[in-house]
Amino acid sequence: MERPRHQGMAKNTYMRWRLPLICLLWEVAMIVLFGVFVRFDPEADAHWEEEKKEMNVTSDIENDFYFRYPSFQDVHVMIFVGFGFLMMFLKRYGFGAVGFNFLLAAFGIQWALLMQGWFHSFETGKILIGVENLINADFCVGSVCIAFGAILGKTSPIQLLVMTLFQVTLFAVNEYILLNLLHVKDAGGSMTIHTFGAYFGLTVTRILYRPNLEQSKDKQGSVYHSDLFAMIGTLYLWMYWPSFNSAISEHGDAQHRAAINTYCSLAACVLTTMAFSSMLQKKGKLDMVHIQNATLAGGVAVGTSAEMMLTPYGSLIVGFICGIVSTVGYVYLTPVLESRLHIQDTCGIHNLHGMPGLIGGIVGAVTAAAATEEVYGKEGFIKAFDFTGSYKTRTPSVQGGFQAAGIVVSLVMAFAGGALVGGILKLPIWGDPADETCFEDDIYWEVPEDEESDVYHMHSPGDKPASP
Amino acid sequence: MERPRHQGMAKNTYMRWRLPLICLLWEVAMIVLFGVFVRFDPEADAHWEEEKKEMNVTSDIENDFYFRYPSFQDVHVMIFVGFGFLMMFLKRYGFGAVGFNFLLAAFGIQWALLMQGWFHSFETGKILIGVENLINADFCVGSVCIAFGAILGKTSPIQLLVMTLFQVTLFAVNEYILLNLLHVKDAGGSMTIHTFGAYFGLTVTRILYRPNLEQSKDKQGSVYHSDLFAMIGTLYLWMYWPSFNSAISEHGDAQHRAAINTYCSLAACVLTTMAFSSMLQKKGKLDMVHIQNATLAGGVAVGTSAEMMLTPYGSLIVGFICGIVSTVGYVYLTPVLESRLHIQDTCGIHNLHGMPGLIGGIVGAVTAAAATEEVYGKEGFIKAFDFTGSYKTRTPSVQGGFQAAGIVVSLVMAFAGGALVGGILKLPIWGDPADETCFEDDIYWEVPEDEESDVYHMHSPGDKPASP
Amino acid sequence: MERPRHQGMAKNTYMRWRLPLICLLWEVAMIVLFGVFVRFDPEADAHWEEEKKEMNVTSDIENDFYFRYPSFQDVHVMIFVGFGFLMMFLKRYGFGAVGFNFLLAAFGIQWALLMQGWFHSFETGKILIGVENLINADFCVGSVCIAFGAILGKTSPIQLLVMTLFQVTLFAVNEYILLNLLHVKDAGGSMTIHTFGAYFGLTVTRILYRPNLEQSKDKQGSVYHSDLFAMIGTLYLWMYWPSFNSAISEHGDAQHRAAINTYCSLAACVLTTMAFSSMLQKKGKLDMVHIQNATLAGGVAVGTSAEMMLTPYGSLIVGFICGIVSTVGYVYLTPVLESRLHIQDTCGIHNLHGMPGLIGGIVGAVTAAAATEEVYGKEGFIKAFDFTGSYKTRTPSVQGGFQAAGIVVSLVMAFAGGALVGGILKLPIWGDPADETCFEDDIYWEVPEDEESDVYHMHSPGDKPASP
Repeated sequence: MERPRHQGMAKNTYMRWRLPLICLLWEVAMIVLFGVFVRFDPEADAHWEEEKKEMNVTSDIENDFYFRYPSFQDVHVMIFVGFGFLMMFLKRYGFGAVGFNFLLAAFGIQWALLMQGWFHSFETGKILIGVENLINADFCVGSVCIAFGAILGKTSPIQLLVMTLFQVTLFAVNEYILLNLLHVKDAGGSMTIHTFGAYFGLTVTRILYRPNLEQSKDKQGSVYHSDLFAMIGTLYLWMYWPSFNSAISEHGDAQHRAAINTYCSLAACVLTTMAFSSMLQKKGKLDMVHIQNATLAGGVAVGTSAEMMLTPYGSLIVGFICGIVSTVGYVYLTPVLESRLHIQDTCGIHNLHGMPGLIGGIVGAVTAAAATEEVYGKEGFIKAFDFTGSYKTRTPSVQGGFQAAGIVVSLVMAFAGGALVGGILKLPIWGDPADETCFEDDIYWEVPEDEESDVYHMHSPGDKPASP
Repeated sequence: MERPRHQGMAKNTYMRWRLPLICLLWEVAMIVLFGVFVRFDPEADAHWEEEKKEMNVTSDIENDFYFRYPSFQDVHVMIFVGFGFLMMFLKRYGFGAVGFNFLLAAFGIQWALLMQGWFHSFETGKILIGVENLINADFCVGSVCIAFGAILGKTSPIQLLVMTLFQVTLFAVNEYILLNLLHVKDAGGSMTIHTFGAYFGLTVTRILYRPNLEQSKDKQGSVYHSDLFAMIGTLYLWMYWPSFNSAISEHGDAQHRAAINTYCSLAACVLTTMAFSSMLQKKGKLDMVHIQNATLAGGVAVGTSAEMMLTPYGSLIVGFICGIVSTVGYVYLTPVLESRLHIQDTCGIHNLHGMPGLIGGIVGAVTAAAATEEVYGKEGFIKAFDFTGSYKTRTPSVQGGFQAAGIVVSLVMAFAGGALVGGILKLPIWGDPADETCFEDDIYWEVPEDEESDVYHMHSPGDKPASP
Repeated sequence: MERPRHQGMAKNTYMRWRLPLICLLWEVAMIVLFGVFVRFDPEADAHWEEEKKEMNVTSDIENDFYFRYPSFQDVHVMIFVGFGFLMMFLKRYGFGAVGFNFLLAAFGIQWALLMQGWFHSFETGKILIGVENLINADFCVGSVCIAFGAILGKTSPIQLLVMTLFQVTLFAVNEYILLNLLHVKDAGGSMTIHTFGAYFGLTVTRILYRPNLEQSKDKQGSVYHSDLFAMIGTLYLWMYWPSFNSAISEHGDAQHRAAINTYCSLAACVLTTMAFSSMLQKKGKLDMVHIQNATLAGGVAVGTSAEMMLTPYGSLIVGFICGIVSTVGYVYLTPVLESRLHIQDTCGIHNLHGMPGLIGGIVGAVTAAAATEEVYGKEGFIKAFDFTGSYKTRTPSVQGGFQAAGIVVSLVMAFAGGALVGGILKLPIWGDPADETCFEDDIYWEVPEDEESDVYHMHSPGDKPASP
């Protein structure tokens, strides 16, 4: 059931040649680049049998695979099911939410393996990949999924792929500056993933501002079942966030601690979200938008500090604050951002990733600055902040300063990068939808006829139902 | 679309100040108590580097985190997605099912960390927490999720929080009596989680009996899609139950064995559930209520014995019986409980957790009593039942007796505690819904307009559909 | 709401005595056989404490449980949620998709433990089972789930159980021939699971050909929400496939490598699927059928070679090709198979498992034939292909030949076995549905009234909606 008004559009959303061309060309490029550069890490290479002896490893269980693979799988679920389903709340954009997220993430992880590999795992001309690289690639793509949330429903799949290409590149540069040049700790990515991803996406959506978007306002809401699908995304993000924040921490106590801190922060966040969701409504009812999103802010906000000695009660405090900040953001800030600053943030990523990401960066800086040998132990102190080699003399307060600098760098990269990419995406060649067809699957997807008729023609008597 | 009849209710379901107040106050209390009492376990503390040497641990992989974290994540999914979605079968209570479960579990795990900590991990004035504590907190909350099933749709979120506070407390006391005083084995919680949780919940719902509940009878059923959502809950509970029953067993063979026994029991349970579901219907058709629930009874019923030498065929027998008992319960017992005993059990927890929990306790007692050194090996025998210290001389048959005593204690605690808490929840201050608005999300939730109109006004010609 | 036309059917779909009888009898048989044959593997037995010393194992973490349990749980999710939800795309067959998959898999894993046990773990009269056996049982059942896809909606639960009984048996025989007699490597089952399962299922559906199936054509499509449910299945299969292909590989580098290769292949596959899905449609829109299925072909096609030194770029190439082959298959081949060869393949398993399985077998043969000591290292080479004992002198090219023979054997077994089982299922005693009631849940399931009325009677003015 093609509705005629789409045909008469000024905008050309026809994807038949453009999308396949980009997908195929870029995938061929990936194959060539992987062929030239990517090989297995020693722990994934068949030479491991010999390597083991040299490294004096006595058991296969010492392979990094067993330290990180369970966390990797949890992170993988967060990227594909977590983000994909979280964005399914719109009543007629479920295919786009989960399908485009699938597309951009599948491309993004390949490009991220290369970009991050060149910066971090490049040895004698080759990128050597193991399970930790897979996690980092998923992390990198996470920041693209976040930015996708801001422009959800307003962009073509080609725009999303273009954005992914650039954002992954910029992510890798920013990550290199933070981790390698500033020697900053950010295992759960409050700065590199959330702050960068959110402000990047917000800048892009600002540049793609659509003044007449209210034409598709009726499609910007949810329906009962779309809210339930979105809760699948929410819960998987919430449950697996301890894995996210601990996935690339040092073996042993650091991974253990990061999981506990995240667990605590997220639990507290649920209670303050519920409290403020009810309080800020005249009718006192809970709002699914808040429950789906603000409950996750606690995980974002301990991203930097979870592996540090934040302590369980410190985590509770962070989660407490972030549930409030995020919920208040949804109620008061999002409308203002749109009306005053012309930032149309479909999923409210500013409330879920932007502000909590900044808080996470600050908490990380403060926690690092407050570190003492007494709290960490002599060896634990050095291990936790990697104060070795040329960083042997760095003090906690200096580390705190560098952590703070990391926030600033991430913001600058996000604004500059977002402006650049937004400008590129504004070119009229990418097939984006017209204002009145935003948030609608049937521009880019074959949508089954019957259900569509359920929604659009429920009351038209001439319509034939599926079965007699 | 507020329907006027809600406004005229005698019952005041307005949550705006009550719910936020409780959430915020209790969360502040958690922060204070965590600040005073909760610290990291040595294996999660940055001093671990030094600790390792003292404990003569050679590798980080020996950290308890790697023994238990994958199981923890599975248990976490069971609590939040498993229970949350299982209860989503009601046609108009999906938000409440998953959302209130989220709220009570998020609060409950914090309170459980404290309560269980005081009883089990309290050292020199501090509660030291690690991954095993997180699992135990999730377990404790599991018993609250079970009880929630009995009162699903008939209570306010405040009542659920109050119940959680008391039930977690009583759970910890009961657990202490069983594990520490009676020296009973119950790794998968047939007694502590299922029997206690179910009979506690049934007592509460008995006291909250609503004689006129048939006023909302049309909302007590499912619709096609709500049954599919519920199957997500069912399957995650079913698939991850081997992790549940093995999560806190001893390292090595005990964890391994517990997973295998549970896998076997659950598989058998599916077949007898299907058999009896078809057999007990005149039309011979399968009933989703049975498939969603009774298929899980096999996991409940090996909760105590899974880590023992129950053997795979023993597990099949237990699963076989429980699929039958549970399905027969749904068909014959649940209606009688309501009409004769005035126990309105929304989810049928008596069939899924009550009777199978009792069976599980008994199977555990018998399996323990039948243990021999020949079957377990000399060392394995002592390790399996922890017959050390003051329990060095305990014999299997005595252990069996104590296991049986554990069932009785759990039941007494459940009835007494349920009566107390039911009485508290009956106070007219908690904002519970009127009989005719039970099982309906829009009392406590902002429900999207369009979908609501789909259901309530599908045929009213004046209604405007979402799109032209 | 029983519609009268079902009653007048020539076909008797009444399950009341037949289904329970089979379920109960077979489950009793399982209990007896388990009682006679099945015991715990030493690593799951309480004697492990003593065993450890004999085996010189220093730590419990060396128990195979910790090497494989996380992968096992992922595989378990793929079988029950992955396949179950993937098949939920039909508008009125959600209960059957997830419920019958649940039934056949629960029975199948028990029978597979026995069948595979007799062939592979039979020692001194007993089958000793551990976590690896659980994975293998799930794998075996995976091939039945695949075959189920071809006959989805057209068979009774009894037929499915009968098919499971035979297919598991034949699977175990085929697996024994390949792994033990031909000494073939196939850790991810491109041949044993996918090729065998697909061509077995296609043969069965060919024999059960229904010339008048277009009578239920209106029910063969999807609706909006059923497509979203199916995406849950797709994503869990996609995300956890690295666990599937690595689950039973050798400890250490082989597991590590298998996960990486699968990750890469699947990522590439998504891009070419999207490309061809758009390209092959005149309107250039993406088709959910392709996204739900063809994106997974990359995982199938590295099933044999993932644990070998396929390398990341080799994996990308395989994924690239399979996304194309699979999508083209859905567009052009499936209709031809039905019209010319009378193969009615409901889920298109030929495109998802058949062709990619064959490609996987070939890629495995080529990769094995191309193996050198330089690439694998001296010890790694022997370990990777298990060139020990009587296979000490086998060369890579000979191994490649045997791998190719494995494909042929799997195909022959599939065609012969499928013909046999198809013939048995054609007997008029199993209660299969009439042509016009295929793809409809309410033949075998109690379907909630209201939703049914939503779909069938949406416009009948006399119908009473659920609520006023």
